[in-house]
Amino acid sequence: MNDFEALTAALLEFRDARDWRQFHSLRNLITSLNLEAAELLELTQWKCDAEVEAMPADPAIHEALRDECADVLLYLLLIADAVGIDLAAAAQEKLEKNARKYPVDKAYGSRAKYTELG
Amino acid sequence: MNDFEALTAALLEFRDARDWRQFHSLRNLITSLNLEAAELLELTQWKCDAEVEAMPADPAIHEALRDECADVLLYLLLIADAVGIDLAAAAQEKLEKNARKYPVDKAYGSRAKYTELG
Amino acid sequence: MNDFEALTAALLEFRDARDWRQFHSLRNLITSLNLEAAELLELTQWKCDAEVEAMPADPAIHEALRDECADVLLYLLLIADAVGIDLAAAAQEKLEKNARKYPVDKAYGSRAKYTELG
Amino acid sequence: MNDFEALTAALLEFRDARDWRQFHSLRNLITSLNLEAAELLELTQWKCDAEVEAMPADPAIHEALRDECADVLLYLLLIADAVGIDLAAAAQEKLEKNARKYPVDKAYGSRAKYTELG
Repeated sequence: MNDFEALTAALLEFRDARDWRQFHSLRNLITSLNLEAAELLELTQWKCDAEVEAMPADPAIHEALRDECADVLLYLLLIADAVGIDLAAAAQEKLEKNARKYPVDKAYGSRAKYTELG
Repeated sequence: MNDFEALTAALLEFRDARDWRQFHSLRNLITSLNLEAAELLELTQWKCDAEVEAMPADPAIHEALRDECADVLLYLLLIADAVGIDLAAAAQEKLEKNARKYPVDKAYGSRAKYTELG
Repeated sequence: MNDFEALTAALLEFRDARDWRQFHSLRNLITSLNLEAAELLELTQWKCDAEVEAMPADPAIHEALRDECADVLLYLLLIADAVGIDLAAAAQEKLEKNARKYPVDKAYGSRAKYTELG
Repeated sequence: MNDFEALTAALLEFRDARDWRQFHSLRNLITSLNLEAAELLELTQWKCDAEVEAMPADPAIHEALRDECADVLLYLLLIADAVGIDLAAAAQEKLEKNARKYPVDKAYGSRAKYTELG
């Protein structure tokens, strides 16, 4: 059992102990993931770039970032379970796909979309 | 090295081979995570609940869901690296925190927020 | 002065009385618009379609929907002011553009994207 | 008929000519509003603060900002119609509510949330 599987097992046990599967439609999970991502975004609200970069050095903000990242991961694991996705394998393959879309010689130092790479 | 660390190592190698760290401010990573979450949400647009539940059974949509979930994870790993977060430990601890906020006897079968649990 | 201009004038007066323009970078306004849109989305969290449709009939939820819609509009007006957009004219022209992208005979009863219309 | 009502009338005529009301559940409209807000956010992706501030001066980006703002407004009008909200009145009242939550003497030059104002 890899780390993703172990986390997912603990998460499903937490869910089922509370009889919450009935609320976890795929739509609700995707909605919740978006809301957790927005909470992460909220931590940057009203800040300029330099202030955002300085966030991790503040212990209270570091903990808030940590909690929100954890929430995003937990919903992502629930979605992956509902859809039937091996998340670690999916990320590994997506990275390989991106490597082909953004070959080093064309993408080096460029933030252009792959559809715009010369 | 656990699975999260192995994926992060591959991801940072991909990033640095393209000299992309310069674009990966914490703000840009958080923004990108939100955009990938929105792409997942977009897959549910114009669908009723039953159609969303049926999405994983369609091979083309399954692949789209898999790709978007992978993208969310990849940006989450980049954020965790930038902030200095052990993502697996953070999720494990958040789950324990949630277990205290939502005790089984009060939260069973309820979707109320912990602040509203009787 | 049309309705949009009157609202914008009141809004800028509110902002300037509090010396808040310094925080209203275009990025922060766009971020805030996204956060307000997410608060609207949050009202649908954990609900099935039928429950979402029933929301406007509940007075407390109706007021919450009204407040969140107002917040979205207020940030949209601030963005339009910052960018230099006549919002009413922009919406009118976008509607005409959409009418050309989605001709009635091809789009009737279809939710396909215009790029997929036969 | 004010500007909001005139725009809404044109929008509903556009919708009904295409028999699209069947797809416009309240949930789908709120989801779509979030997706349009995300498209606005996407225009800021990979940019630093100074580059975001410079966006309106670039004619192509100005037009993209204008189109996305229009899309946000169009979905907001559809939501207001579905819920039964007078959007102009709602925004006016929200502004008055905010003025009470953020009294000038306490909020001047501060970006603190009203719950944190001293």
